[in-house]
Amino acid sequence: MREGGPGPSVTSKALAILGAFTPQKPKLRLMEICRATGLKAPTAHRLLGELVEWGALEKLADGQYRIGLRLWEIGSLSPRSRTLREIARPFMQDLYEATRENVHLAVLRDSQVLYVEKFFGRRSIRIPTHIGERLPLHPTSAGKVLLAFSPPAVQDQVLRSRLQRFTPRTITRPGTLGQILTEVRRTGIATAVEELTMGAFSIAAPIVDGEGRTIAALSLVVRSSPNAPDRMGPAVRTAAHGISRMLAQTPDLDIGA
Amino acid sequence: MREGGPGPSVTSKALAILGAFTPQKPKLRLMEICRATGLKAPTAHRLLGELVEWGALEKLADGQYRIGLRLWEIGSLSPRSRTLREIARPFMQDLYEATRENVHLAVLRDSQVLYVEKFFGRRSIRIPTHIGERLPLHPTSAGKVLLAFSPPAVQDQVLRSRLQRFTPRTITRPGTLGQILTEVRRTGIATAVEELTMGAFSIAAPIVDGEGRTIAALSLVVRSSPNAPDRMGPAVRTAAHGISRMLAQTPDLDIGA
Repeated sequence: MREGGPGPSVTSKALAILGAFTPQKPKLRLMEICRATGLKAPTAHRLLGELVEWGALEKLADGQYRIGLRLWEIGSLSPRSRTLREIARPFMQDLYEATRENVHLAVLRDSQVLYVEKFFGRRSIRIPTHIGERLPLHPTSAGKVLLAFSPPAVQDQVLRSRLQRFTPRTITRPGTLGQILTEVRRTGIATAVEELTMGAFSIAAPIVDGEGRTIAALSLVVRSSPNAPDRMGPAVRTAAHGISRMLAQTPDLDIGA
Repeated sequence: MREGGPGPSVTSKALAILGAFTPQKPKLRLMEICRATGLKAPTAHRLLGELVEWGALEKLADGQYRIGLRLWEIGSLSPRSRTLREIARPFMQDLYEATRENVHLAVLRDSQVLYVEKFFGRRSIRIPTHIGERLPLHPTSAGKVLLAFSPPAVQDQVLRSRLQRFTPRTITRPGTLGQILTEVRRTGIATAVEELTMGAFSIAAPIVDGEGRTIAALSLVVRSSPNAPDRMGPAVRTAAHGISRMLAQTPDLDIGA
């Protein structure tokens, strides 16, 4: 029942166009969209017209396209961002006020960390994370938490993949990472010491739903210092417990992956 | 060149399905989607399958559909939420810390206020606004700011529409609202005194881009009290100026409607 005979359906072509936009490439020209999607220019042009008309995309005066505010509005209805964030934000605000450091809320997505909420520590270390962006799991504390409590198949896949090096301190040996994940499961806390960015220390704790599943991680990113773990560990753990308790009390939550 | 002969194209049908989800109805069954879109069940079912496969929607065990995290991720790329929010958030944090009150960032959307960012005043009055939700313009301070600086055609349309009453203090006479808008343009500040929610006072200032266009409003919502305007006006104005200054310094901004 697919239109246009064999090959991708019209819907999947329109969705492929939306999928061509990334945090690295938030504005695209027609030819870039054709390259990213494999669509021919007339097809892409027609679909772009419909996406612009509906408000999923906006066309700029210089001919580039960008994601439209209407898509943001509808995307905001995703419970895995909306419900989780609404419950987590007051606790994140408290953690921010108590520490004045960077506070992150992250979920697992395609074997990566997806940051769904963030408070900037204005006087803290500047780090290159943005809401809606992803990072690899292994060099981030939130990623280690999410990985440690993810299904064995996900862990196997990550441990078998090439672990990219970001700094001299990035953990790239699967055996070492595996031992760390065991330790994270035992202690309920993960750290990353200059493994993604030199000078940055991050510490994360799991956020657990009413059934005991880890559905997110809360992390603090601060300037690396010898006493950072002692100073930050109890705070991030306390806030993560608070969010988990609220999640357990929320009926009809259903925000798992 | 539309598939399936005359009538709505496949793309517009798929988009209509996405548009059926609202803050009031974030989960929908197949039959509700058919009712909202006018699509026949087999067509809707097939398109839903494609939207789920791509991750725009998620299907729950009970058969209901909801917006998927992937759509949130792509929607987050909208510059009118992403760029504006990234620039505004540090100033909003500062305003929250200085006042401990509810801080809102709002844009104009289809003659309504759309809230794109919010800090909850935990010890402040509880108000029923959520990120990604809309309210009418006339009973909110942010709405009055956005309306006062919007094109005359938008103002005419709102002033000619029925102004819904929410409380005994809601301004429902177009003449009165028109005078208030003139005053907002003169002073650069708008208030709403128990016009949407009894007990709540809100005050808003415009956020202006480098070309002098009002592209958003920043507002504080506090418990109504005689000294609230004096206490909150300078703070919200200061933060709005800070955001506007940063916007003017940001090259290639292009976040206007």
